[in-house]
Amino acid sequence: MQTTAIKKLYKQSEKYLGKRIKVNGWVRTVRASKAFGFIELNDGTFFANLQVVFEESLSNFKEVARLVTGSAITVEGELVESPGAKQPFELKAENIEIVGSCAADYPLQKKRHTFEFLRTIAHLRPRTNTFAAVFRVRSLAAYAIHKFFQERDFVYAHTPVITGSDAEGAGEMFRVTTLGFDNTPRNEAGQVDFTRDFFGRETNLTVSGQLEVETYCHAFGKVYTFGPTFRAENSNTPRHAAEFWMIEPEIAFADLKDDMDLAESMMKYVIGYVMENAPEEMDFFNKFIDKSLLARLENVLKSEFGHVTYSEAIDILKNSPEKFEYPVEWGYDLQTEHERYLAEKHFQKPVFVTDYPKQIKAFYMRMNNDQKTVAAMDLLVPGVGEIIGGSQREERLDYLEQRMKELGLSPEDYWWYLDIRKYGGTTHAGYGLGFERLIMYLTGMSNIRDVISFPRTPKNAEF
Amino acid sequence: MQTTAIKKLYKQSEKYLGKRIKVNGWVRTVRASKAFGFIELNDGTFFANLQVVFEESLSNFKEVARLVTGSAITVEGELVESPGAKQPFELKAENIEIVGSCAADYPLQKKRHTFEFLRTIAHLRPRTNTFAAVFRVRSLAAYAIHKFFQERDFVYAHTPVITGSDAEGAGEMFRVTTLGFDNTPRNEAGQVDFTRDFFGRETNLTVSGQLEVETYCHAFGKVYTFGPTFRAENSNTPRHAAEFWMIEPEIAFADLKDDMDLAESMMKYVIGYVMENAPEEMDFFNKFIDKSLLARLENVLKSEFGHVTYSEAIDILKNSPEKFEYPVEWGYDLQTEHERYLAEKHFQKPVFVTDYPKQIKAFYMRMNNDQKTVAAMDLLVPGVGEIIGGSQREERLDYLEQRMKELGLSPEDYWWYLDIRKYGGTTHAGYGLGFERLIMYLTGMSNIRDVISFPRTPKNAEF
Repeated sequence: MQTTAIKKLYKQSEKYLGKRIKVNGWVRTVRASKAFGFIELNDGTFFANLQVVFEESLSNFKEVARLVTGSAITVEGELVESPGAKQPFELKAENIEIVGSCAADYPLQKKRHTFEFLRTIAHLRPRTNTFAAVFRVRSLAAYAIHKFFQERDFVYAHTPVITGSDAEGAGEMFRVTTLGFDNTPRNEAGQVDFTRDFFGRETNLTVSGQLEVETYCHAFGKVYTFGPTFRAENSNTPRHAAEFWMIEPEIAFADLKDDMDLAESMMKYVIGYVMENAPEEMDFFNKFIDKSLLARLENVLKSEFGHVTYSEAIDILKNSPEKFEYPVEWGYDLQTEHERYLAEKHFQKPVFVTDYPKQIKAFYMRMNNDQKTVAAMDLLVPGVGEIIGGSQREERLDYLEQRMKELGLSPEDYWWYLDIRKYGGTTHAGYGLGFERLIMYLTGMSNIRDVISFPRTPKNAEF
Repeated sequence: MQTTAIKKLYKQSEKYLGKRIKVNGWVRTVRASKAFGFIELNDGTFFANLQVVFEESLSNFKEVARLVTGSAITVEGELVESPGAKQPFELKAENIEIVGSCAADYPLQKKRHTFEFLRTIAHLRPRTNTFAAVFRVRSLAAYAIHKFFQERDFVYAHTPVITGSDAEGAGEMFRVTTLGFDNTPRNEAGQVDFTRDFFGRETNLTVSGQLEVETYCHAFGKVYTFGPTFRAENSNTPRHAAEFWMIEPEIAFADLKDDMDLAESMMKYVIGYVMENAPEEMDFFNKFIDKSLLARLENVLKSEFGHVTYSEAIDILKNSPEKFEYPVEWGYDLQTEHERYLAEKHFQKPVFVTDYPKQIKAFYMRMNNDQKTVAAMDLLVPGVGEIIGGSQREERLDYLEQRMKELGLSPEDYWWYLDIRKYGGTTHAGYGLGFERLIMYLTGMSNIRDVISFPRTPKNAEF
């Protein structure tokens, strides 16, 4: 007999009610008296459990009554309407096979565990309600992103993880090497001889696929990356991980306005997709993690995102009654407190801040006519602050070379990046979205360690 | 005026014929006489070009007539039926704006370039027909894989790229470190003090997400990974790369047969999706790369995959008239020549070989009752040989510990992997599909360097 996913029972119950079915799953709880008992069974396909009722007539009644949380079982029986109010139906067991027992020291007993404790058993935590919901939403959000871009004929490009370019300047990098620390090959001057390393040069883990994907943008017009990126920064905060996934779309024949329109559509699409496809999980987050979550996301769906220049934003902040910890001054980067004030109090919806001073933004951003600001945009959202950073890219070779010179970057290291400006270069723009930040935003979870299956942070690479 | 993608013109031409439209793109060729000219324009959204016709009446006729390959332009005009037989329609230009010029040393002139040469300009090669087709198919195949698993309620898990576990035994690993080669911290015994490294321990790039995803399988029932994996093997062959993407599904309450059924469905789904969504690209490959490609893929779609045990396969090979370079003997691994003979000559379709001798397979594969073979499966396909490797996993703690002992693996290093067997462990199975091998199979391309945007191989990490 084929097994049926518990999700199917909930989504198409009319099809299964009164039928004999077979389900697999893991026991969440067992309550048993002498004559009958109840099992809350979860098979991982759906947020809710299936109630299984079993009676004394079961050949292995005693063993089943003694089942402990975490055991794996297979149940056959009839799906019937439930007399109880808590669930719409229940499975009347005719046969229960104990497939996998669970040792007595199972750490996930029926009680509240702290997120800190659950991080130490990251291999087991997706069996809890919270983490099952987080990682199901993560999976759905990843798919929604692919679906959004593919439906719009974007080409998904896999940019390299190992990179020979160590000069992107987006952050500290991890070295990738096969050289040993003992008997390291050295040249006559005593320096490490990286020509003997695996790739014949120094290599690192990428901090961004943007520069590479700009080249693909000039072949396909619309492209995106979705892959892991790395920062070797010793930041032990709830918002930083050494390994995280990033989405980086890039569009040709496009300016900053097109870029912001794309970001707004994408955000709304992903939020809408997750709310539609994981309503039980989203209700759970709204009830137990962040009571303002659904109201906030629904507000995003129906708002037109705001637009304000950096210079205007500085004025707004200076004229606000709010006391900020960090100074507000033209030329300084906005801090999270400023970003949240703008999004939460002033605009009360997501807002794009554009045209930042060139000195606080990357070399590849397009110079504005004022020669002081660049065509950059950050999307600030209530509850988080910055969630997306993007820009129109400098397509003019002379401007780009001038800017690289000012910053001491060597054109030879970027020969292929500069080539794109020489050979049919067009206006183009793109942005980066930190995937884990998005998941935190979608779930209300406040620590990045709780939205990554096996997080990598300073001094931590267990599992 | 909004721009229209050239793909839309081809797919919904009735909607656009006779209308005034605007397109962007890059010039593939220009032919011009004194009174008029033709431009073959490609915008990256579609395999075929759009023919643009321009006449002397154009204000910048002379500049347009002198346009070179690679230039970026924006064209406005009317889409009309083409008098020529080569294309169904053409764009009668009323206005052509030259958006991005192209320098005279543009390497992609209208002539045949070798794949070897094109690898040296990996940032420009997606502008050629072949590589535009390869990377569009790659993007579609990636999406098809997500779509297949998501439609079947699999949860997509992102397993870590940086791993503290160096003992998986699947291959040589790259070290990830922030320690310097000079003044490396050392303990009193003179050994490198990895407690001072970023993660406080030795870390490497992952060779597989399988062990981690097995833990998620025991929470969600059906899961998959799709991410980059790494091998620091000095193999300079057309089939090996140091960085490649892998898909690893894992299913609970499932045995080897379920595993093979899943692999067969997935292969057929992906092939079908790509043939349906990239017919122009597939025709191109069939014409210019591998003339038997479409016949082979269509044969896969309509075949039921074969099944044979390793022991039976050895007998078939021993009794075959074929002369093999490598010996055929029970206990030896199958070589590509053996795999291809089985798939191409004997079965003439994809075939699963199952139940390999335990000594040539990994420690986590489930021991068969004969105590000599394990519940492993390799999928062999005509034209390639092995494309998928999988197994039912050993869910019995005592068997697994015994096998680890035999192989000298330390249980402490695998505490979390063993936990899965202690706490509600069930029968489960999974497989790995090398994504680049799949793309080679789908396109007929014979070098892995030509299906990865910026390939990483020994002594090569350019871009």
